[in-house]
Amino acid sequence: MNENTPVFSTMFFGPWCEELIEDYAAIRYRITETLFSGKSEFQQVDVVKSKGFGTMLFLDGLVMVSERDEFIYHDMITHVPLFAHPDPKKVLIIGGGDGGTAREVLRHQNVSHVTMVEIDGMVVDVSRKFLPQTSCELDNPRLDLKIADGVQFVAETKEKFDVILVDSTDPIGPAAPLFGDEFYGNVYRILNENGIVVSQAESAMMQPEAQKSIVKSLRTHFPNVWLYNYTNLTYPGAPWSFSFAGKGDAHPFKNFSADRVKDSGLKFSYYTAGIHHATFQVPQYQQDIYEGTLTPLD
Amino acid sequence: MNENTPVFSTMFFGPWCEELIEDYAAIRYRITETLFSGKSEFQQVDVVKSKGFGTMLFLDGLVMVSERDEFIYHDMITHVPLFAHPDPKKVLIIGGGDGGTAREVLRHQNVSHVTMVEIDGMVVDVSRKFLPQTSCELDNPRLDLKIADGVQFVAETKEKFDVILVDSTDPIGPAAPLFGDEFYGNVYRILNENGIVVSQAESAMMQPEAQKSIVKSLRTHFPNVWLYNYTNLTYPGAPWSFSFAGKGDAHPFKNFSADRVKDSGLKFSYYTAGIHHATFQVPQYQQDIYEGTLTPLD
Repeated sequence: MNENTPVFSTMFFGPWCEELIEDYAAIRYRITETLFSGKSEFQQVDVVKSKGFGTMLFLDGLVMVSERDEFIYHDMITHVPLFAHPDPKKVLIIGGGDGGTAREVLRHQNVSHVTMVEIDGMVVDVSRKFLPQTSCELDNPRLDLKIADGVQFVAETKEKFDVILVDSTDPIGPAAPLFGDEFYGNVYRILNENGIVVSQAESAMMQPEAQKSIVKSLRTHFPNVWLYNYTNLTYPGAPWSFSFAGKGDAHPFKNFSADRVKDSGLKFSYYTAGIHHATFQVPQYQQDIYEGTLTPLD
Repeated sequence: MNENTPVFSTMFFGPWCEELIEDYAAIRYRITETLFSGKSEFQQVDVVKSKGFGTMLFLDGLVMVSERDEFIYHDMITHVPLFAHPDPKKVLIIGGGDGGTAREVLRHQNVSHVTMVEIDGMVVDVSRKFLPQTSCELDNPRLDLKIADGVQFVAETKEKFDVILVDSTDPIGPAAPLFGDEFYGNVYRILNENGIVVSQAESAMMQPEAQKSIVKSLRTHFPNVWLYNYTNLTYPGAPWSFSFAGKGDAHPFKNFSADRVKDSGLKFSYYTAGIHHATFQVPQYQQDIYEGTLTPLD
């Protein structure tokens, strides 16, 4: 384990649940009720009611969703690529079992079909039961929800997609292959021309090695790679990133306009047309990690 | 106390120090050594060595500075207004006893004179002793450091300034008057035409009431008010803000150019010309708090 890659783990004790960052820091949440605690074939799954953040879902001790701030993550993984692509019709979501990403994708009326491949049925089941705020669109007729291995799906499918969203946990446990070379080779193959893939890409301050490995895997296959940043209440306070890679002419801004956002009639809680441009401006220390090799923005 | 305004407090126990957010969450740091612990005339002052964040300064239980991430806060409070102003010569810092803001201001060679007014001599003393990383420029001949009440200083001084930076802790304890109406009236009076004031303005997610009160106080006196965001490792993971208000024609972008940043020859760890524009794009939920009344950016 690289010393730059923190290990997160969680302990539940009494009324507190604590997410530990290696052995040097921790974030604690006050829990009022444990709604579910179980071990699936893949990971530990816990759902709790918290005092300050509403219902929270933990996978292997990592906060995945809190009702209070999930809108930030789900806006940013979804609307940035969907407004960057000129006409997204077919969307693939890998992971995202809580349903929040699917909920946001399905708000785009030009999207005709969404395939969602979640490896862990228990995550979907507990989200349906305890997190209606995120799981509310899982029965939408435009959504095809498969409980299956996303790595195997992208290796075998004959379908092609305009936008692929990799909504994964950290690169340990079941999500580890989603950060690798082979996975992104298959993602490239099943993207339509000018298609876009966006992936959860950790934090350059907290896990620079994990972020570098995603960018490296993407670059093996894609001509252009960018990173864009956001911040969540329930993640340690560093900027967190998504990676954005495109086939052919795909680009964060070239097919984007503030008018398209306005004309969609959609109102968001976090995302704005201004945020769309701003989020790709990464701080100097993050640029330095890639020694100026991130694709210039204009 | 408004329910939207979290109360932070810190307990030190054994090898951990814990910053409590009301009674519903906490951030804990692993402490390897307590370097200083004392009570000044104004507040509790603690300096510790931590495992993950280097030396840390706490005032009344709030993290003020960690060696690991102080560059973000100090870049953002300083370089945004100093590159927005066409020719800043005289700068006033209220607070900022750790010296990090003065260090960054003094890197701008066009700044001929910096006045810094810190109320608490103990903060300056412990920073000189334990935080050379931030306090290293406190003896710079272009700096006039006064241990005095900033509120009284702005009320009485006959000097005028091009840029005023309010580098304060939260609006409780000695910093409370720095969030008020009367203070900003005096700030307006002692700013030169087209001068800029930037203030630490809390978080719209964590303390919307405190942020609203700063914006309201500023608007009583300034024609234009903006907010800009950043995020720190040692603050809860929400976006945090600075307020930016200007006299006359002062504006975040009108006198700014990427060339000015380049021509300065300065290299930063966080700030870039791209970040300068991006940071003013606040999320929709933050715009909604002000019901579209924040001054449009172009």
